[in-house]
Amino acid sequence: MPAAAPDLRIRPYAPGDADALWRILHAVFATGETYAYPPDLPREEALTGWTAPPARAWVAERDGAVVGSSRVMPNQPGQGAHVANGSFVVDPAAAGGGIGRALGVHALRAAAELGYRAMQFNLVVSTNRRAIALWESLGFATVGRLPGAFRLRGEEEVDALVMYRRLDAPAPGGAA
Amino acid sequence: MPAAAPDLRIRPYAPGDADALWRILHAVFATGETYAYPPDLPREEALTGWTAPPARAWVAERDGAVVGSSRVMPNQPGQGAHVANGSFVVDPAAAGGGIGRALGVHALRAAAELGYRAMQFNLVVSTNRRAIALWESLGFATVGRLPGAFRLRGEEEVDALVMYRRLDAPAPGGAA
Repeated sequence: MPAAAPDLRIRPYAPGDADALWRILHAVFATGETYAYPPDLPREEALTGWTAPPARAWVAERDGAVVGSSRVMPNQPGQGAHVANGSFVVDPAAAGGGIGRALGVHALRAAAELGYRAMQFNLVVSTNRRAIALWESLGFATVGRLPGAFRLRGEEEVDALVMYRRLDAPAPGGAA
Repeated sequence: MPAAAPDLRIRPYAPGDADALWRILHAVFATGETYAYPPDLPREEALTGWTAPPARAWVAERDGAVVGSSRVMPNQPGQGAHVANGSFVVDPAAAGGGIGRALGVHALRAAAELGYRAMQFNLVVSTNRRAIALWESLGFATVGRLPGAFRLRGEEEVDALVMYRRLDAPAPGGAA
């Protein structure tokens, strides 16, 4: 698989990225379509939840601008802490340019290097077809379906998927 | 289905229950076999996590002694907060007496009354056959299987199940 978004640089999040990250988090959460976070989640709560330990966060930078971010953290404490949870946001204005894929490939490698054995997504909204196709292409399997577990802003309940990928198995195309 | 454990009283948790609840939580968590919590989770952290809002906790009392507890809280924030997470502990010395079932039946009813639309268990250890059989008998379905997502204290990884039950469907035997 060719490297996606070759002009993209992925580096650890730094406090100076707060404004740019918040702009993207807010834009994504406010849609109420892909994340369970309240659409009106306050700035500091959003930034802390995304970046404070035990989470590790990275940003994707292009032409000096932050265009996306990833976060990796234990999905459960203690006896389940060897499974990572991964979260990803892309600036809606930059969507479709391979940023999500590049962040995903990077996060899979980073999680493995941090010692995680698997990565799990707890709540992939079933209407988010672009994300589902991306994660499947990166080796994730849908291991569960939660009937009506996500409520769209119009209050309609839609199914959510649990997606999972061991990190000790090679990625399709050697992506991670 | 006959009422389980008729001598059991289930009532809201009160601060005076802290010692008794901690004794049970510690005994259950320390096994490292059923909950992801670190086996050495400190007392205050355990009690706060179990009882502080937005969680709601109840205790099961028999002959004046606390013999088990349940906790119901949103499984996700915002757009996923209509799904409850349920957690249950039973004093190991009192196991097998129908306390878990009584707490489960009560919690399903309580969650529905609180407005939740479903109840989810994120990490049912696949070796915990008694729990799996109990939840299946109360109408839960295994909607997902997470390969190696739980690490036993001996470090062996075993699968974990995601179990789920809508609350707008009647329970088997009218249990909830």
